[in-house]
Amino acid sequence: MTAVETRVLGDDSVRDRLLLAAIDIFNQKGYASTSVREIVEAAGVTKPALYYYFQSKEGIYLAILEEAHKEFTRCLEACRQATGTVRERITELFVTIYELMRLNMGVVRLIHAVFYGPPQGAPAFDFERFHLALWNAIRDLVLEGVERGEVRAGNIEVFTLALHGASNVCMEVELAHPTQDLGVDVLRQVVDTVFTGLMPLPATAAS
Amino acid sequence: MTAVETRVLGDDSVRDRLLLAAIDIFNQKGYASTSVREIVEAAGVTKPALYYYFQSKEGIYLAILEEAHKEFTRCLEACRQATGTVRERITELFVTIYELMRLNMGVVRLIHAVFYGPPQGAPAFDFERFHLALWNAIRDLVLEGVERGEVRAGNIEVFTLALHGASNVCMEVELAHPTQDLGVDVLRQVVDTVFTGLMPLPATAAS
Repeated sequence: MTAVETRVLGDDSVRDRLLLAAIDIFNQKGYASTSVREIVEAAGVTKPALYYYFQSKEGIYLAILEEAHKEFTRCLEACRQATGTVRERITELFVTIYELMRLNMGVVRLIHAVFYGPPQGAPAFDFERFHLALWNAIRDLVLEGVERGEVRAGNIEVFTLALHGASNVCMEVELAHPTQDLGVDVLRQVVDTVFTGLMPLPATAAS
Repeated sequence: MTAVETRVLGDDSVRDRLLLAAIDIFNQKGYASTSVREIVEAAGVTKPALYYYFQSKEGIYLAILEEAHKEFTRCLEACRQATGTVRERITELFVTIYELMRLNMGVVRLIHAVFYGPPQGAPAFDFERFHLALWNAIRDLVLEGVERGEVRAGNIEVFTLALHGASNVCMEVELAHPTQDLGVDVLRQVVDTVFTGLMPLPATAAS
């Protein structure tokens, strides 16, 4: 989820080439088995270049995650500034994150490998920040929806989970079962279906 | 997701002790770094016992996954035999799988570690079977719901994803963010919320 992968076509700076190569090799071999030599060879640069920008293997790994987090936060921030109904903004939030994910599958895979995989000696990183930021963004929109009468009164945690699930399941299928090939249109329809269950019922039926 | 963890209190056979120990050590150290010696020591048995039941480290690993798959399939089969409305049966299906997962977190963690983690030299296992079996079970219930007039006409893939998401998100929070401590009641409410979005709208409002 870094800006790096999305920038790659327009920008082939040494720093970005190193980041992309590191994502690739970490995913192929795992963090523990990856060497600085392999990263610099894949990037087509020399070891001092890596040491200059990132100091170490730990450094380049943390830079990947920090950039991913920065880009993710930027996304959430942009969605927070958006206008429209709560339904529209939740849909756009999920579409934005889904597209960010699809452009940065390497980083998403790396995060999953470290988070769920066996201990590999990677330096600590607070992955919970991703979850909490997204959770809060959804919950705030649900709360606003209730306030505006766009969402019926109910258990906010439950509504947040229901919407979160719509986005999660599409991202998980994309990551783990890519042959199902969902795409943004299906995501929109899933969010729409779930949101229908959150609407004030009589008003919905009358419209 | 094997029957092993749920059986542990009542049955301490050597075979089960070995399976439980293996799940534990695989999760602590990763598949690649686990030795047969560590498994038998944790189980309090001798190497020949492991070789007798499972032949090898590969063998005990595959036995864990095969039992998990068997138990998962048994669950889906039981839900297929159930009676009641589609809404009730989908809810019970998810509750059953959620409880199975909570009783077997070690196996669930191991599956995630192997599926998402770096290559570790573990023998091949078709994890897609879990996904496909659950997907088909949900989709069949959605189709039956449409046929019976309990679910409105619509895109079956989208409805399947929406329901799948309700169950997925609760399992993921349980696995990755256990401090949120959801529980079965919250799961039921999430499924209920999503299902509301699938109902024939005018009938819902009138009832």
